[in-house]
Amino acid sequence: MRQAGRYLPEYRRLRGDRDILETCRDPAQVAELTLQPLRRMDVDAAVLFSDIMVPLAAVGVPVRIEAGRGPLVDEPVRDTRGISRLRPLEPEADVPHVLEGIRLVRKELDRPLIGFAGGPFTLASYLVEGGPSRDQARTRAMMLSSPNAWDSLMRALVGVLLPHLRAQAGAGADALQLFDSWAGALAPDDYDRSVLPYTRSIVDGLDGLDVPLIHFGVGTGELLPSMARAGGDVIGIDWRTPLDVGWDRIGGPASRAVQGNLDPATLLASWDVVETAAQRVLDRAASRDGHVFNLGHGVLPATPPEIVGRLVDLVHERTERPR
Amino acid sequence: MRQAGRYLPEYRRLRGDRDILETCRDPAQVAELTLQPLRRMDVDAAVLFSDIMVPLAAVGVPVRIEAGRGPLVDEPVRDTRGISRLRPLEPEADVPHVLEGIRLVRKELDRPLIGFAGGPFTLASYLVEGGPSRDQARTRAMMLSSPNAWDSLMRALVGVLLPHLRAQAGAGADALQLFDSWAGALAPDDYDRSVLPYTRSIVDGLDGLDVPLIHFGVGTGELLPSMARAGGDVIGIDWRTPLDVGWDRIGGPASRAVQGNLDPATLLASWDVVETAAQRVLDRAASRDGHVFNLGHGVLPATPPEIVGRLVDLVHERTERPR
Repeated sequence: MRQAGRYLPEYRRLRGDRDILETCRDPAQVAELTLQPLRRMDVDAAVLFSDIMVPLAAVGVPVRIEAGRGPLVDEPVRDTRGISRLRPLEPEADVPHVLEGIRLVRKELDRPLIGFAGGPFTLASYLVEGGPSRDQARTRAMMLSSPNAWDSLMRALVGVLLPHLRAQAGAGADALQLFDSWAGALAPDDYDRSVLPYTRSIVDGLDGLDVPLIHFGVGTGELLPSMARAGGDVIGIDWRTPLDVGWDRIGGPASRAVQGNLDPATLLASWDVVETAAQRVLDRAASRDGHVFNLGHGVLPATPPEIVGRLVDLVHERTERPR
Repeated sequence: MRQAGRYLPEYRRLRGDRDILETCRDPAQVAELTLQPLRRMDVDAAVLFSDIMVPLAAVGVPVRIEAGRGPLVDEPVRDTRGISRLRPLEPEADVPHVLEGIRLVRKELDRPLIGFAGGPFTLASYLVEGGPSRDQARTRAMMLSSPNAWDSLMRALVGVLLPHLRAQAGAGADALQLFDSWAGALAPDDYDRSVLPYTRSIVDGLDGLDVPLIHFGVGTGELLPSMARAGGDVIGIDWRTPLDVGWDRIGGPASRAVQGNLDPATLLASWDVVETAAQRVLDRAASRDGHVFNLGHGVLPATPPEIVGRLVDLVHERTERPR
């Protein structure tokens, strides 16, 4: 999950009121914001500072990000004309700042760096809804009622996302994460028919790069087997599904590694609550190989930074360090 | 699910721009809005027109409902002082309009009437967040970090909800539905510890009324066994969980009836898409007794009313009518 964020005072100081997409276009700030969390916490990897809307903005989608609300797309994409304007991403020309940011991070970083992109359903949902929504109803409606338009939209998004991920790996990212955060709005049948093929073509397109892929969504209890079939070396599980239950549903450790899944809201409670809940996650992974400890979703802005650092140490104390 | 709503032109005409809570305090309008859908559709039961915030407003919580946004609570409840202001509901004094609305409906209606209330976690989330939120993080944080305050809040809500439900049954509701819509934000352990006992005390308090209770939440795939343990004669399943999968998770038809679960977004597609998807739901319930066909969540405002009526007829044609 994103490590940089408003819960860190040094992040708030550096970011100020500057637009987040503008910050993402500044390689020095990208590098600094990526590295900040590692200066105070003993995490095992860095997560690139960026935003899932960056590649869409880079191909000309009129997107802005409003603090406290999320991404807003002033001209939602709801028809063939809108879709036809989504051109493929040419990374060196369109997102040079991301790649330069990665190269700057690589110079300083002695740990793995995780790059990322939004998943195709999630990006489609922002494009179709024009902003965040509770259950992506308009997107689901388009998916169900206009399969041809949906196919064009998803293909166009693959043409943005795959080059973006490949270029991040090329610039020095050691692992990649695909955040199909809102895919959990779908029933498995619909996901299998209307999202899985496109995600799989992204996964297939990363073949041969030797960069592991983490595949994550929120509220995906029912979707875990489908998401695993779509692809990813590691499947992220949100806090709603007990880690062992989710792991069994995917097919167990023989099938795939998992990432997760402490409820981020836990970190707003006292340390003994955090400790008990973290141990519960570790217990659910005990005696299995291939667990990446993480939160079940992003760090909440009200989280005390000290608690995050203490959690990292606790997990290290109670588990074997990765090689 | 709610049958009345903005998708019906006669609803929009009658409601106009009037505040929804104000409308809920007008028994004649409550009755008319409850009956409207039955004048155009052959549904098997009426659903009382009301809002889950009605009983909270009735005990003095400063709540207003903003069109397109949802319930807003201007002074969120986040401490003992806020909680102590939540007094028990006295139905005849506090919600006489609801009870009078039910009596008016009963005079005209030749089918069962379903009354309802919000579930304790869902109402707590509006009180604590001050409005709708994506994942109820602040509510979950309070639940985890202040168990005593949480206990007081949940007890106070039981003191509002149980009398409200009992009074609806007393006034003529033939069945009741508990909408703990946002309980799906919780991991099962947390639900079991912090919500289940309170929901169960509501269920127990309805004992002896001989009025069946439907218990529903959104995104509750992982919670279905817990919700069934909390209580309810019928467990509602949202569209994300295939009906048979959810039913098996609860314990199968021997354990409980289920309600659901056509994706409401389906109704925005063409009729053949609706027909196929509805048949898929029926197939998943085939050869089992105790399925109440319904949508997996509320009717979306853009839904063509004709499609809803046609769906009702389709389900009747393809299933045995209830006695």
